[in-house]
Amino acid sequence: MQSRSPIDSIASVKDRLTSVMTHLSTTKPRVVICRNLGPDVMPLLEKRSDVEVVVWPEDSSCDRNWLLEQVKGAAGVLLMFPEKADKALFEAAGTSLRVVSTMSVGYGALFIPPSRYTIQQSPAEHIDLTELTNRGVKLGYTPDVLTDAVADVTVMLALMAGRNAGSTIELVQSGQWPKFLWAPFAFCGPQISTLPSSPERTVGFVGFGRIAQATLKRLIPFGITSCIYTAKPDSPSALDRDTAILSQYPTLKTLRRVDSDELARSSDVVFVLAPGGESTRHLINEEFLRKMKKHSVLVNASRGTLVDSDALAKALKEGWIWGAGLDVVEGEPNITLDHPLVKEPRCVILPHIGSASIETRIDMATLAVNNLLAGVFGEEMPAQLKV
Amino acid sequence: MQSRSPIDSIASVKDRLTSVMTHLSTTKPRVVICRNLGPDVMPLLEKRSDVEVVVWPEDSSCDRNWLLEQVKGAAGVLLMFPEKADKALFEAAGTSLRVVSTMSVGYGALFIPPSRYTIQQSPAEHIDLTELTNRGVKLGYTPDVLTDAVADVTVMLALMAGRNAGSTIELVQSGQWPKFLWAPFAFCGPQISTLPSSPERTVGFVGFGRIAQATLKRLIPFGITSCIYTAKPDSPSALDRDTAILSQYPTLKTLRRVDSDELARSSDVVFVLAPGGESTRHLINEEFLRKMKKHSVLVNASRGTLVDSDALAKALKEGWIWGAGLDVVEGEPNITLDHPLVKEPRCVILPHIGSASIETRIDMATLAVNNLLAGVFGEEMPAQLKV
Repeated sequence: MQSRSPIDSIASVKDRLTSVMTHLSTTKPRVVICRNLGPDVMPLLEKRSDVEVVVWPEDSSCDRNWLLEQVKGAAGVLLMFPEKADKALFEAAGTSLRVVSTMSVGYGALFIPPSRYTIQQSPAEHIDLTELTNRGVKLGYTPDVLTDAVADVTVMLALMAGRNAGSTIELVQSGQWPKFLWAPFAFCGPQISTLPSSPERTVGFVGFGRIAQATLKRLIPFGITSCIYTAKPDSPSALDRDTAILSQYPTLKTLRRVDSDELARSSDVVFVLAPGGESTRHLINEEFLRKMKKHSVLVNASRGTLVDSDALAKALKEGWIWGAGLDVVEGEPNITLDHPLVKEPRCVILPHIGSASIETRIDMATLAVNNLLAGVFGEEMPAQLKV
Repeated sequence: MQSRSPIDSIASVKDRLTSVMTHLSTTKPRVVICRNLGPDVMPLLEKRSDVEVVVWPEDSSCDRNWLLEQVKGAAGVLLMFPEKADKALFEAAGTSLRVVSTMSVGYGALFIPPSRYTIQQSPAEHIDLTELTNRGVKLGYTPDVLTDAVADVTVMLALMAGRNAGSTIELVQSGQWPKFLWAPFAFCGPQISTLPSSPERTVGFVGFGRIAQATLKRLIPFGITSCIYTAKPDSPSALDRDTAILSQYPTLKTLRRVDSDELARSSDVVFVLAPGGESTRHLINEEFLRKMKKHSVLVNASRGTLVDSDALAKALKEGWIWGAGLDVVEGEPNITLDHPLVKEPRCVILPHIGSASIETRIDMATLAVNNLLAGVFGEEMPAQLKV
């Protein structure tokens, strides 16, 4: 038999303690975080001693295989836009999974951006709601907090599309400004704000929810005199809401729901701010665009699928409308140089940055963490999607 | 002696009549128009039978030699931005000249854009006010009518500079969107509108005239809580005006004049909207920019000379401020690819399109024509500059 020195003995006790602590730590609920959320938000997780936090360590999309491995036995997972919570993920997680928290307002069909790890680029459900509900998993999301950020970009796109910002920036960036011949109407576009010689403006909204209302609010001091909107055929009348909004803005003379035909014919700017999905696919098509005013502008800051890109390119090329400002394009992010809208000088395209402000993304990440932790511990989630 | 046939006789009378009519027509006051003003405005001149109208026939800057020739004996001349009313022009015109009407709000030192006819690109007076007054010639200009158009572009530039519109548009236009790796804070910039987690915003104005006030009006619904401004040292206090503005906007808590130091330190967005000239040259210099907030944005929509381009490029490169939106650049239009600001991804540059909306340029051209005609016939001009 071997004799034990006191030092051996201490080492052995230390080993056993470590083992016990490891066991204790593994009994804490584990949460998987698909992206480092930055120095403003990560401390919310790091300071918690009651959860085991696993974070995708690289500054890139989370690797699918890593995620499927880490999620085994996890109580919660925090995803973002590029990650999928599909059947395979739910099966890998098993019965321990209590909550999926997505740092997004959308949860339905999306095009998955390519990453250096996957070549999956076909449309897919971001969150498989059927699997989710069948397994009794809760879903947290981040509505509302991005309203102002998106409304800011929506107003910006309306101004840019009208005032030829895309082509004029390009003129300067390509070194052509010195060769430019000044002329009284060079680079002129329609003016969104009213002036004494042109005192009426109508804005039209496809979908009149929170972001649309926040956009209207921002446009009131530009002199908008009339606001019209379309809504889902089965949605109830909102006369009381509209009366309340009208009384808030004394310079706004009209606010009313119209049909798609009137929206197209009467609007100086058409804002597309409705949910995506099959029921709204290509609401803005050739028929709609042909009815629009020659000096009108189309803005889409919701989902690319609402606008038929080929029809819009045709409308711009043939001058049915003045210009377009898009934060989203059908098939994004696979929008290559040969895309018909990239080639249209009157089309301004942003790479889906509507909610991409520092303040808003911090708020979204904070809400996603709070949803995750509340869901894991069975507390009321700040923003749970009731499915 | 030759006998005359009745037909000869009629021809002779017709000749004499034509001669008399020609004489009559040359006694009408002649006006020289340096550019075709388009189908909305030219009829104002064409319908007038009491003036002889001479219009530069090409769709380009007016040729200097043509102008000096045509202006001989003219009663009025309508100029725009690229043309000069200098001593040579006044001498060529002679004592018949009663009015110079410029289709611009500015009338002082400008850089003359190159044309295919001239290589004049050095700074020069657009209108030589000394020659003008010595000769008793009246000057018409087009103030006020462009306030709204410029305010629209000013707001657009603030949004674009904060939300990285320049670099994100470039990403899409160069076909890089498909390769873009989504990340929670990719392309994020500071948000101009307030949100519950960030409820205060201060805008600062260098110069608080009409365009600045129209810009503030548009920004109120973005949640601006404080407005500060600087004014010329000798300008009187405007407390009454400021009190009136504050009472108009219940959500605006502060409106007050400050010194340049406080403006730089406290503003989330600094708007440069002051006149050009020597007294305001490089008001925005390295010292000012070093005091600004790291997440702040600079917008210049007045005159390029107010901002030191090299200092601004350094501020952007070294991250003293977040971004810049410029409608004007010192030395414009000679802004080539090697200009330090063209190379800064956080700098959005427009080629001086502030007033370039269709409605506003029609109003400016109309006002310029009305100034011209009133000046020629000794009537009260709608907008005469009192020099």
